[in-house]
Amino acid sequence: MLVREGETSYIRAIYIDPTRIGKDSFMGTTLAQLAELVDGKVFGDPDRVITGANIIRDAVAGEITLMDKPDQTALLMEDCQASAVLVREESEKLNIDGIVVANVHEAFGKIIRFFQPWEQTASAGIHRSAIVSLAAVVDPTATIGAGAVICDGVAIGKNAVIHSGVHIQAGCRIGEEVVIFPGAVLYDRTEVGDRCIIHANAVLGAFGFGYDSSSGKHILSAQLGNVVLESDVEIGAGAMVDRGTYGSTLIGEGTKIDNTVQIGHNCRLGKHNLICSQVGIAGSSTTGDYVVMAGQVGVRDHVHIGTGAMIGAKAGIGSDIPNGQQTLGVPGGPAKVILGEHMAIKKLPEMRKTIKSLVKRIEQLEKEAAAITEPVIRKAS
Amino acid sequence: MLVREGETSYIRAIYIDPTRIGKDSFMGTTLAQLAELVDGKVFGDPDRVITGANIIRDAVAGEITLMDKPDQTALLMEDCQASAVLVREESEKLNIDGIVVANVHEAFGKIIRFFQPWEQTASAGIHRSAIVSLAAVVDPTATIGAGAVICDGVAIGKNAVIHSGVHIQAGCRIGEEVVIFPGAVLYDRTEVGDRCIIHANAVLGAFGFGYDSSSGKHILSAQLGNVVLESDVEIGAGAMVDRGTYGSTLIGEGTKIDNTVQIGHNCRLGKHNLICSQVGIAGSSTTGDYVVMAGQVGVRDHVHIGTGAMIGAKAGIGSDIPNGQQTLGVPGGPAKVILGEHMAIKKLPEMRKTIKSLVKRIEQLEKEAAAITEPVIRKAS
Amino acid sequence: MLVREGETSYIRAIYIDPTRIGKDSFMGTTLAQLAELVDGKVFGDPDRVITGANIIRDAVAGEITLMDKPDQTALLMEDCQASAVLVREESEKLNIDGIVVANVHEAFGKIIRFFQPWEQTASAGIHRSAIVSLAAVVDPTATIGAGAVICDGVAIGKNAVIHSGVHIQAGCRIGEEVVIFPGAVLYDRTEVGDRCIIHANAVLGAFGFGYDSSSGKHILSAQLGNVVLESDVEIGAGAMVDRGTYGSTLIGEGTKIDNTVQIGHNCRLGKHNLICSQVGIAGSSTTGDYVVMAGQVGVRDHVHIGTGAMIGAKAGIGSDIPNGQQTLGVPGGPAKVILGEHMAIKKLPEMRKTIKSLVKRIEQLEKEAAAITEPVIRKAS
Repeated sequence: MLVREGETSYIRAIYIDPTRIGKDSFMGTTLAQLAELVDGKVFGDPDRVITGANIIRDAVAGEITLMDKPDQTALLMEDCQASAVLVREESEKLNIDGIVVANVHEAFGKIIRFFQPWEQTASAGIHRSAIVSLAAVVDPTATIGAGAVICDGVAIGKNAVIHSGVHIQAGCRIGEEVVIFPGAVLYDRTEVGDRCIIHANAVLGAFGFGYDSSSGKHILSAQLGNVVLESDVEIGAGAMVDRGTYGSTLIGEGTKIDNTVQIGHNCRLGKHNLICSQVGIAGSSTTGDYVVMAGQVGVRDHVHIGTGAMIGAKAGIGSDIPNGQQTLGVPGGPAKVILGEHMAIKKLPEMRKTIKSLVKRIEQLEKEAAAITEPVIRKAS
Repeated sequence: MLVREGETSYIRAIYIDPTRIGKDSFMGTTLAQLAELVDGKVFGDPDRVITGANIIRDAVAGEITLMDKPDQTALLMEDCQASAVLVREESEKLNIDGIVVANVHEAFGKIIRFFQPWEQTASAGIHRSAIVSLAAVVDPTATIGAGAVICDGVAIGKNAVIHSGVHIQAGCRIGEEVVIFPGAVLYDRTEVGDRCIIHANAVLGAFGFGYDSSSGKHILSAQLGNVVLESDVEIGAGAMVDRGTYGSTLIGEGTKIDNTVQIGHNCRLGKHNLICSQVGIAGSSTTGDYVVMAGQVGVRDHVHIGTGAMIGAKAGIGSDIPNGQQTLGVPGGPAKVILGEHMAIKKLPEMRKTIKSLVKRIEQLEKEAAAITEPVIRKAS
Repeated sequence: MLVREGETSYIRAIYIDPTRIGKDSFMGTTLAQLAELVDGKVFGDPDRVITGANIIRDAVAGEITLMDKPDQTALLMEDCQASAVLVREESEKLNIDGIVVANVHEAFGKIIRFFQPWEQTASAGIHRSAIVSLAAVVDPTATIGAGAVICDGVAIGKNAVIHSGVHIQAGCRIGEEVVIFPGAVLYDRTEVGDRCIIHANAVLGAFGFGYDSSSGKHILSAQLGNVVLESDVEIGAGAMVDRGTYGSTLIGEGTKIDNTVQIGHNCRLGKHNLICSQVGIAGSSTTGDYVVMAGQVGVRDHVHIGTGAMIGAKAGIGSDIPNGQQTLGVPGGPAKVILGEHMAIKKLPEMRKTIKSLVKRIEQLEKEAAAITEPVIRKAS
């Protein structure tokens, strides 16, 4: 078995120069050893020493890179300093050593990890500095990181990884194999399905933005609901999902939500949606399944986005969107219509010229008509 | 007095199956008991066992729901499985048991809380894991949560609740009955008025985005001011208010700021504003009172938004807005004007057709004119 | 040397009334003493007692203010209660005491700090409540705040200040004189150059939003890269920079990123960019040097913004932008073109009127033509 240098991180770390901020160098390993690691077949020199792994754009001499498309051959041969390449199949055009593997991405991932000096890992158990309520139940296979706060009545499932500094308030339920990154905050009674990933500083269950303003002051509405994530949901860093008024704000199975997205109170998102960064969805709106929203889309309250709808970047949705409709613009409309309008706007300056020339030509015609009609009519009379 | 099962949470929690992630079931309680709780009057069967409370859309058999509008009768009778309902007054059309109460929302809130297995509660005092400077002064009725950090010179008022993991830097003043949720960060000298609510991961007092770029590098401007929240302000999760350059960035009394809103340095917001999610207001801009900004509005620096102005979603404000003006669009203008432009844009494709047909008709007229004029003129001469 | 009252903060703090939330009052100091502090020259009464410092807009009686532009004289004399002023040079128009200094901003900063009751300061060393891995290396001159979590393999450079509650995951490298504010999260292997400032609750290195959706589920792509900040970068509060797929997401030297900006995976920003609040840049896009993006700009994936380009607020960039181009609009185009379109849109209602009148005039001409042609032709025949 291949053993990486410095495998025992505690020992190795002692020898790092504290003032040296930059990339580690390694003694390197041979192409043959890497081929063994990824179950591949060497072509070229098996004893070539490889010191790291990097993408074509960034690889330097000594590193191995990957080629996942045939049309990268020229790029690799002419603009890249890499000393070896991972490929699906050998080629006469590749004048470089390398390894042939069935799945280049999987193999490249293994090699990157091999050369990576450090990786954040989880070890089951509760860190001595975590604050875990006696009235919480944590599965023995779960990990609770340093300084994490787990309040009364929380239940945490098998193999869940709660990173450092996560705050999980009373009555939350965390499913199996869930990962929650540092600084995420789950207000009371949030429910998180199996295999969800919640990124750093995301907030689930903050108050909805609903007020009774009839008195001249804004009086906060009820905040008695919660947030429910079904299984396989991913919540981006700094993303926000507000709690329901009485019921639940729901994110459907397999839906992925990017960084700093805002989901208002009482919303119900369907399954397998992709909601890109900085999208905002106002209260009580709903989506079907497989909805895609590009970046910075805004959706008003109480509308429904149909299954399979795709909303283009920066669109503003003010009314229901039918299933499967590609939608653009502010206010949003069918992509074809909006693109037609964009084209028409681009032609506005030309249109103005045309109109001006029409005005002149008509004036000319009117003059002529006046000039002609009179004598003609005189003559004719 | 009615006692909920499992009232003593520490004992009850021990019996939760750690691998069971899902909703608790309760033995239930009778409609008569709930009526006693909310000071209401039963109609139908007082001994009906109720196991939970939910909104009409989500209620299942055994649960009680609420009806706050008369037109929900059909929905309740046909599409809802609830076993009982909270209403303002009895009706022959309601073929279901229930409770009549004066205020259905208040009563429903009480019942939801009764059935809720857990709620995040505060108990006055400083958690053993909180880090509180000897040079900070915390009122004995205030709560400081686990891992919260309270620095030198901070003063925290009566009944304030500082949740876990809040960071309050030197010299901050926190008023009475303020609530600050986990992960919020208050840079030094932030002042927070009475009854403010600051949600999770909000940041008050980070550096303004102001630089002197004359040297080719961007040199940060002075960051000597602070952030001041007057009383009854709410700051949403992940919202940001930057500190003033020398003076204060000010949020007026009763103003509510939604999640991930950005307020630039030296801004001064008036009283009772409603600033919806993802709005950005650049440095030194000001607002009057009762201003409303819908989601994703952007306001440039150094402009004033007058009292009572309403800014529509996604508008981009580049100049002062008069009091009370409804404003839309990018760049923003009076709603009527912008809606007129939107209508005109919708008609652009039609306009283009009209113009094309005009061109043809004029060409035809010109031809005819040429054809006619010549012989006529010849004849006439 | 001038000693401020209450310099020993621990003693002074004991005497603060815990229920008094508001500004401190000081006994004050004389104008002569302040002039000594800022190496300036008094004009007027050197014994005048000054109790604080504030900008012209906010200064009250007893306070000193600054005048950095000559045209503020009227404002200062008529609308400001300040008792003294800092100026570059004396003027007969200034009927007020004051101090002349070479650099008013630097001097005003010193005076503000003098009157400030508290300031967040850093003292080298590791707070007893910080969790620092034995396999991390912290320079002895660095500061690690309360509850900060420093994982395996992290290296922290000279004079770096890591505030309370910062989470730095395995293998991160933090340069010299870096400041990281509370709640910021650095995922594993993030690299931070010298003198960078990272504000509260920023997140560096969260997963990129990239999925393989061919199976009907969204399967997360590789997350093996990292985030690299070159030197002198500033990252705003709540800003997010996602990690590269295999390589690095890179922020170039001197580039400043405002609050809640989102930078997607594999992006490479050039040097000395200014990226304003709420901008979103999708994956794999790149910028040259000295690029400026105003607030709420969106940039799609895989585009390049050329050196010196300036992108106006709320623009949506869907394709490459040439060096130096001023760009506006959605979709973005050269500022002149887009402003022309905006003008044209403003004239649309007028254009519609013109077209309607043209239609009438043509109809009239056609009628006349029909009326004239027939008899004329008849006559002529």
